[in-house]
Amino acid sequence: MSAITSPRGFVASGVPAGLKKSGKLDLSLIATEDGTAVPAAAVFTANKLAAAPVQVSRAHLAAASGRVAAVITNSANANAATGAAGYGDAEQMATLTAEHLGCAPEEVLVCSTGLIGIPMPMDKITAGIPAVVVARDAMGGNDAAEAIMTTDSVRKEVVHQGSTFRIGAIAKGAGMLQPNMATMLAFVTTDAELTPSELHPMLRTAVDGSFNRLTIDGAQSTNDTVIALASGRAGPADPSEFQEALNAVCYDLALQMADDAEGSTRTVIIRVQGATDDLQALHAARAVANNQLAKCSWYGKNAYWGRVASEVGACGIDFDPDGFSISYGDIVTASSGVAVAYDEVKMGEYFENRRIRITVDLGLGGGAGEIITTDLGHGYVDENMGKS
Amino acid sequence: MSAITSPRGFVASGVPAGLKKSGKLDLSLIATEDGTAVPAAAVFTANKLAAAPVQVSRAHLAAASGRVAAVITNSANANAATGAAGYGDAEQMATLTAEHLGCAPEEVLVCSTGLIGIPMPMDKITAGIPAVVVARDAMGGNDAAEAIMTTDSVRKEVVHQGSTFRIGAIAKGAGMLQPNMATMLAFVTTDAELTPSELHPMLRTAVDGSFNRLTIDGAQSTNDTVIALASGRAGPADPSEFQEALNAVCYDLALQMADDAEGSTRTVIIRVQGATDDLQALHAARAVANNQLAKCSWYGKNAYWGRVASEVGACGIDFDPDGFSISYGDIVTASSGVAVAYDEVKMGEYFENRRIRITVDLGLGGGAGEIITTDLGHGYVDENMGKS
Repeated sequence: MSAITSPRGFVASGVPAGLKKSGKLDLSLIATEDGTAVPAAAVFTANKLAAAPVQVSRAHLAAASGRVAAVITNSANANAATGAAGYGDAEQMATLTAEHLGCAPEEVLVCSTGLIGIPMPMDKITAGIPAVVVARDAMGGNDAAEAIMTTDSVRKEVVHQGSTFRIGAIAKGAGMLQPNMATMLAFVTTDAELTPSELHPMLRTAVDGSFNRLTIDGAQSTNDTVIALASGRAGPADPSEFQEALNAVCYDLALQMADDAEGSTRTVIIRVQGATDDLQALHAARAVANNQLAKCSWYGKNAYWGRVASEVGACGIDFDPDGFSISYGDIVTASSGVAVAYDEVKMGEYFENRRIRITVDLGLGGGAGEIITTDLGHGYVDENMGKS
Repeated sequence: MSAITSPRGFVASGVPAGLKKSGKLDLSLIATEDGTAVPAAAVFTANKLAAAPVQVSRAHLAAASGRVAAVITNSANANAATGAAGYGDAEQMATLTAEHLGCAPEEVLVCSTGLIGIPMPMDKITAGIPAVVVARDAMGGNDAAEAIMTTDSVRKEVVHQGSTFRIGAIAKGAGMLQPNMATMLAFVTTDAELTPSELHPMLRTAVDGSFNRLTIDGAQSTNDTVIALASGRAGPADPSEFQEALNAVCYDLALQMADDAEGSTRTVIIRVQGATDDLQALHAARAVANNQLAKCSWYGKNAYWGRVASEVGACGIDFDPDGFSISYGDIVTASSGVAVAYDEVKMGEYFENRRIRITVDLGLGGGAGEIITTDLGHGYVDENMGKS
């Protein structure tokens, strides 16, 4: 599978430029087959410490009226908190890529992921860009997906075959996942025919229902970026079919990211229902998902529902202490605000799954919302205690 | 030292009632020497899943017009999410204590701390209350302080000698510390003469500047309670001297709690200054304090300031990505938004301290605020992964 080049009109590649000490692939290119710019849309981090590549990509997308010929991405360095020099480095990455592809610099978007506050090793980048441009081809999607990985243990790829169009997508992101997004990058290609102004709201909707429903540790990265490119080779697509497909592709990637979140042992899907409204439900689900004590209890395979209930009571939404119920999978642990005896053997078996579902019913109204998260254990600490 | 009975007019005690499997002290009493009610004030958790003892204490304080004769506290069971039966149990604790002390039930406040969702073992409580009442004396403060401990490794006690008055205080609370407070209990006695309506705003001010500046993991407990009792034996106190003393006593207890937070290896004081205003500074300091990635880096003795900067940029306050600086103790790690080379040996030495200070200067205005927190490491995970 070469997911990102599965839709017609795209090529991709990944090369080792020497940024990763391991020697693994670390420079990634996605480009149109013929080097022409096609309609595109992007969603960027809301972090005010937006990395230089985010600033450059925002400016380029505006300057080129939402048309993009290529996306150049490096891993192992975020080019964030690097000042004016970092901005210049990101610009240079776009300019060099454009030179070798034969397009305008504004038609190239730039992404970086890795550590913050470290100057970009531009000697390695400038040597790597010609190589990654030369290497591009219709089967290069796997390499492109691998080259954007940081602490990811597996590539994240997905292909959707629609009635008239295809969508291909790749992503990276294993820690720091949180709305608005994460240290996550996701790239989506399609051969559906869409204008930039059609594509942007569709991408925003898909991101809101997927990456923005995923939180690993409540942190929000300086570099989060989702980019979609539409070659138009398949002609117009049914808008509602395309939106549904895009939603499904992004949700699939979000689940893949949770399943591979660094140091995690389980993916936990928190559903709050019976809330006054959807916003309250989503707020409560996110509060539980970010609750350190609850996260530790999931690591311990422990259905300590009191921590879930306490967080829901504390998070500021409408709450009836005598009206809530909490279930782990199908196993009810609390009802009408008090404990329900349950089969501990069955609960132990349930916790052997990678994916756990916790449902909190507030018994108040029709509001519902879900958040995807992970547990918090020794592996997470080990991954994050010090690698700078 | 018997801190809580250091001011004139108070007695205290602690006994083992069998709630802790270890056989340690688990039932605690603070009472007036003669059993009469004295002016009091309290601050309770804002969690909507407020435990039964919190509900009972709120009602009693109102019914007795802010006058209290005793506080009865058990550890090892929170009596939270226990429904109508739990409320009845908390009422019974007050009634029994009142009977043995010879005061009205409304003059007794009730506190509980421990696991959520488990019915109170009332047979043990009813046997323990007569014993803890009989045991009360002017030297019983240490036992009272020990009997409220849960995962605390040491008693938290403080005494302040003012020009005309004394303040004594004890506290427990090692996990789940967060505004508005924590799974924390703090009891303050004074012999200053104050009415309930004088004491309440002073206690609120002291709590805002201390316990509400302390967050261990962002969770907010169902049982948090701070209670102050004023015997009046020392006559009127200078109001500003008393307020300052009360602030200092509460801040001292907050630091003691952080230093003993379960599974932590260091106390971290986050100061944000140069903010647009104090509220923004405090919001940013709290966001950094609750950032799991930053907490893991402190555990790893790692001055990874990029995580601190990223969180400040993400938390929604006014932020200039080219204007901030970050220091660990006196060691500057970033200035004008970019990295500053620092002595790694000195940084390593600095991280050997139990208490670390991180200062973020935003370079925007005069707003400043501090939050006390701890790191996140294996010990925290071990303490919280499963004990229900």
